[in-house]
Amino acid sequence: MEKKLVSIVMGSDSDWSVMKQAAEMLDQFGVDYEIDLVSAHRTPGKLYDYASKAHERGVAVIIAGAGGAAHLPGMLAAISPLPIIGVPVKSSNSIDGWDSVLSILQMPAGVPVATVALNGAKNAGILAAQILSTSDSSILNTIAQYKQELQKQVMIKAENVKNQQGVK
Amino acid sequence: MEKKLVSIVMGSDSDWSVMKQAAEMLDQFGVDYEIDLVSAHRTPGKLYDYASKAHERGVAVIIAGAGGAAHLPGMLAAISPLPIIGVPVKSSNSIDGWDSVLSILQMPAGVPVATVALNGAKNAGILAAQILSTSDSSILNTIAQYKQELQKQVMIKAENVKNQQGVK
Amino acid sequence: MEKKLVSIVMGSDSDWSVMKQAAEMLDQFGVDYEIDLVSAHRTPGKLYDYASKAHERGVAVIIAGAGGAAHLPGMLAAISPLPIIGVPVKSSNSIDGWDSVLSILQMPAGVPVATVALNGAKNAGILAAQILSTSDSSILNTIAQYKQELQKQVMIKAENVKNQQGVK
Amino acid sequence: MEKKLVSIVMGSDSDWSVMKQAAEMLDQFGVDYEIDLVSAHRTPGKLYDYASKAHERGVAVIIAGAGGAAHLPGMLAAISPLPIIGVPVKSSNSIDGWDSVLSILQMPAGVPVATVALNGAKNAGILAAQILSTSDSSILNTIAQYKQELQKQVMIKAENVKNQQGVK
Amino acid sequence: MEKKLVSIVMGSDSDWSVMKQAAEMLDQFGVDYEIDLVSAHRTPGKLYDYASKAHERGVAVIIAGAGGAAHLPGMLAAISPLPIIGVPVKSSNSIDGWDSVLSILQMPAGVPVATVALNGAKNAGILAAQILSTSDSSILNTIAQYKQELQKQVMIKAENVKNQQGVK
Amino acid sequence: MEKKLVSIVMGSDSDWSVMKQAAEMLDQFGVDYEIDLVSAHRTPGKLYDYASKAHERGVAVIIAGAGGAAHLPGMLAAISPLPIIGVPVKSSNSIDGWDSVLSILQMPAGVPVATVALNGAKNAGILAAQILSTSDSSILNTIAQYKQELQKQVMIKAENVKNQQGVK
Amino acid sequence: MEKKLVSIVMGSDSDWSVMKQAAEMLDQFGVDYEIDLVSAHRTPGKLYDYASKAHERGVAVIIAGAGGAAHLPGMLAAISPLPIIGVPVKSSNSIDGWDSVLSILQMPAGVPVATVALNGAKNAGILAAQILSTSDSSILNTIAQYKQELQKQVMIKAENVKNQQGVK
Amino acid sequence: MEKKLVSIVMGSDSDWSVMKQAAEMLDQFGVDYEIDLVSAHRTPGKLYDYASKAHERGVAVIIAGAGGAAHLPGMLAAISPLPIIGVPVKSSNSIDGWDSVLSILQMPAGVPVATVALNGAKNAGILAAQILSTSDSSILNTIAQYKQELQKQVMIKAENVKNQQGVK
Repeated sequence: MEKKLVSIVMGSDSDWSVMKQAAEMLDQFGVDYEIDLVSAHRTPGKLYDYASKAHERGVAVIIAGAGGAAHLPGMLAAISPLPIIGVPVKSSNSIDGWDSVLSILQMPAGVPVATVALNGAKNAGILAAQILSTSDSSILNTIAQYKQELQKQVMIKAENVKNQQGVK
Repeated sequence: MEKKLVSIVMGSDSDWSVMKQAAEMLDQFGVDYEIDLVSAHRTPGKLYDYASKAHERGVAVIIAGAGGAAHLPGMLAAISPLPIIGVPVKSSNSIDGWDSVLSILQMPAGVPVATVALNGAKNAGILAAQILSTSDSSILNTIAQYKQELQKQVMIKAENVKNQQGVK
Repeated sequence: MEKKLVSIVMGSDSDWSVMKQAAEMLDQFGVDYEIDLVSAHRTPGKLYDYASKAHERGVAVIIAGAGGAAHLPGMLAAISPLPIIGVPVKSSNSIDGWDSVLSILQMPAGVPVATVALNGAKNAGILAAQILSTSDSSILNTIAQYKQELQKQVMIKAENVKNQQGVK
Repeated sequence: MEKKLVSIVMGSDSDWSVMKQAAEMLDQFGVDYEIDLVSAHRTPGKLYDYASKAHERGVAVIIAGAGGAAHLPGMLAAISPLPIIGVPVKSSNSIDGWDSVLSILQMPAGVPVATVALNGAKNAGILAAQILSTSDSSILNTIAQYKQELQKQVMIKAENVKNQQGVK
Repeated sequence: MEKKLVSIVMGSDSDWSVMKQAAEMLDQFGVDYEIDLVSAHRTPGKLYDYASKAHERGVAVIIAGAGGAAHLPGMLAAISPLPIIGVPVKSSNSIDGWDSVLSILQMPAGVPVATVALNGAKNAGILAAQILSTSDSSILNTIAQYKQELQKQVMIKAENVKNQQGVK
Repeated sequence: MEKKLVSIVMGSDSDWSVMKQAAEMLDQFGVDYEIDLVSAHRTPGKLYDYASKAHERGVAVIIAGAGGAAHLPGMLAAISPLPIIGVPVKSSNSIDGWDSVLSILQMPAGVPVATVALNGAKNAGILAAQILSTSDSSILNTIAQYKQELQKQVMIKAENVKNQQGVK
Repeated sequence: MEKKLVSIVMGSDSDWSVMKQAAEMLDQFGVDYEIDLVSAHRTPGKLYDYASKAHERGVAVIIAGAGGAAHLPGMLAAISPLPIIGVPVKSSNSIDGWDSVLSILQMPAGVPVATVALNGAKNAGILAAQILSTSDSSILNTIAQYKQELQKQVMIKAENVKNQQGVK
Repeated sequence: MEKKLVSIVMGSDSDWSVMKQAAEMLDQFGVDYEIDLVSAHRTPGKLYDYASKAHERGVAVIIAGAGGAAHLPGMLAAISPLPIIGVPVKSSNSIDGWDSVLSILQMPAGVPVATVALNGAKNAGILAAQILSTSDSSILNTIAQYKQELQKQVMIKAENVKNQQGVK
């Protein structure tokens, strides 16, 4: 497999409504990806297999989303040598999202997880693209354009806000 | 192996100063135990081995202590059919212990961890003995005696407090 | 009474919508149980009676659910020698569930409560079955099957997710 | 017993360094009091006795201090008809005092505990005196004087601060 | 004015839906009360007048409800010698009620506020009655009856729960 | 430009429903203002321009609203010599508003932001007027009148509450 | 009194070690100030006097520091038409400073307090100077110089850091 | 410049004791890096320059550490197209680190920061190396070796723990 792949995994299919935003960003940046369901707590064997082999079949970055006592990103980071991006998902019965955030963010020294904001799957997609862009200048250019597009949209909205309200 | 065993595992040897209190309680209740270092994040392979085989060699309950983004108790619960007792350890760089507590307590439906208080290894030892006492009346008796002993100590201290201060 | 019994108690009948999930799991594992309403704050006398006699009539594990300043699990643990599983219930006027969680989890040394996640009654049922399985291999087998079932369900859902999205 | 009594109870003699401030305030206001050690978790039987009989022997207000999952004030309130003042004590292994505060404050409807600040035993003593002052004008006068004294002390310190720094 | 009065004050008329539960309990216990709107932040002059004169016209206890940065209970306690019961109200734009709770509970040494649970106006009414009952045995009897009624209701609901579910 | 101007800026047009309350207060106090969209994260260049030139074209105070990891108020304070008022906006995906509050409030020594309550744009408008009133007695008078109006409204509502409920 | 004055008040002389940093900044900016001790809870009468008269004797801005359930800044804002800067002080027995922060920050609509960081008295001094600078260009210039000085110091330290470590 | 560079920047030289751990890890992995002091709040101009030019002179990843209302990582992410790793530093006057964590983690959609644990500079160094390893298999090998080394150390310590305590 020539082109580098991003892997998007999540602990439950109910996480997909959040996690698909990562896929949408990768589509936008022209980055290939695969999607899978891997539950640290219900399919620990699959987790082990997945994490130990991903880098051998062309995956360069793993994006992992999970909620509550979210162990998936950290366990992937424990097993795989690849950079892991963790997305804390605010699941039902979560205590306001704090459980997801802290159980992904507060990894011990030696085993990092690149954590993004609560439900921040969109940013996880961008970050994965940025990581690949460190060796792919075409992605770097797309990211630079994306940033300019963000800026342009604010500029247009700013005109609307100012026209509507004006300086008094 | 005839007698049932409790396993005490922890993610780091720095957790031992807390976790040894579990061992002390098991000594007091006459319960056999083994001790090991198993790090979810640094020895994921050993974690898998340990969790999948413990019940086959006479372990009936596992006590697992970990700090920060504490994944050890939850991952043991994911792999082993045994009851898992989780001890949130307040490690250095923990955010006041909240990370350890939430990443052990807030397990998803289907995979319980019996969580005790922050640094509550002593209670983990008692709880393990209580679990074994459901089929061993001699342990149940020892626990009943222990509770009476707790009560007696308070009664003695109460006299000291009252004598010292008196009713005015 | 030959077979061991699990007791499910709660402080208010409004907790039942959460606590019935414990009963459903015990049904699934073929474990007998009884249900009662015991309020630490409104029926303290009944609490005392219940806690001091449960182990004499065949109860081996007590599951107790309560919300707010939740004292039921801890008081049962104070009086009964049995293992107590505490379920923090997110009641109305709770401060996001923190009150229930902390007043059940943070028991003092000597008096453990096996705490599960906020509203985690399903896990309380599984944990009770695991406790009984330490002396009943048929329950242990059912639990092992349950875990395999959990895994199978994720595997099926994973196919759905992958088919739907594919590797791009 | 003619004169009304305040009862100061605590769960552990280690709480005394905090709770003695309640006694000191009652001394200052000329209010009689008794002191005892009553642990909800280690002496539940004594708790029941104490709470159900206190009002029969002249106790009019109970001040109860406890730390961690602090059940003593709430259980006294469950059993006794008397007003109960709860003092959350910041014990070791407390999660920054939040556990003590929430497990005393967040009592369910029907069973109030008059909660004061973390380690606020001094205020518990004043509040007990205020409660007795609702039917004892001599105590009310002493409280009014105490408030004037507080004011005077600030006035004196204000002069020191102003003299030292001056208006520039 | 012969009979002692409870005063119920609140910072905003939007607090009434919570605070009326205090009035309902006082009705039930046969305790007289008055109601007023006193805003620490919008009517500071009225606050001062109200607090300095309440005890002169027969008020024995003040119940004060407020939300957000809730200063009303504490300022009443600063000015009046009477016991003040504070009710943290969860107002809109509150940060989950934490602001109300902490700004009422955490009073400095010397100036207590008897704080009840978030939105706990019902308990504030009961507590006020308990305070008056320290010198009025008829109220004490009504409170004892109320507690028995609470207990009876749980007992009836317990039968419903047990009949419905039964012991399996 | 003779008269001093207040600038109201926000990071996203979705903040306008909150931030317009600042504009309404400035209208009421007769203070001129301008409105603009400036995103610290999407238009960093505009932020720099805006902040470095505002004081040169008659702006005397900047009100800045932002949510989540809210960097706009702090970055304006870093660049502009003007007093900056920060409004933490509770955006979607915010963790209960804590992120907005802390990332605006907790500025390092040397670079203050005058922070108001979560979603407290109305108070931001009043505060801006108060700042201008330090050199404009007509605004000071309007503020004094506004405070009297606040007081009058409470007084009227108090009559309603008292008439409706009465002293029993 | 010709020149405008800043008033620095605090609830307790133990707050001075924090609050003096406000005075030091005002010294540095050449702004006159006065210092006083005003306790909302112990000297409520003085609070009323102080707040209602400050603007009449040349005070243009009030800086108020307080800890715990910190009512001083908010009550000053309730009574005085002047802009009030609140400094949450982390006092002993504070719950990690959250009580001070929330009881100062979360003021209701209509009564703003310009809140700075926990123990942020230095920033309170700078903010007061910035407020006066809206009508005093010499102060504005000093603030601009101060900002350049901050920048210069970082530049010097940056050289030290770079020389010491170098690019490898 | 041929080889890719990691940039380590921080807001204050007092952050160096934490941030140097990132440098140590990069040394260990043979990755080149530069170090600089860039304060979002005190040197906003340098921040703009630094962020807009870093990718032009060979920097591939930026590690940024900051405390309190930590805006440095987010502002770098706003300006630079490079992947930014944020290290929340627990500074003095931080509210237990929550301010640093939330103001780095909770970035809005479109502008990611790869956040690591509180004071987790060591993990930031590893993560930077992992990012570079996506196009440099020699770094990937070093990381795999590092993980094996972590594992070996736990294995040795496990023997010590077991020898010392043994199975009883």
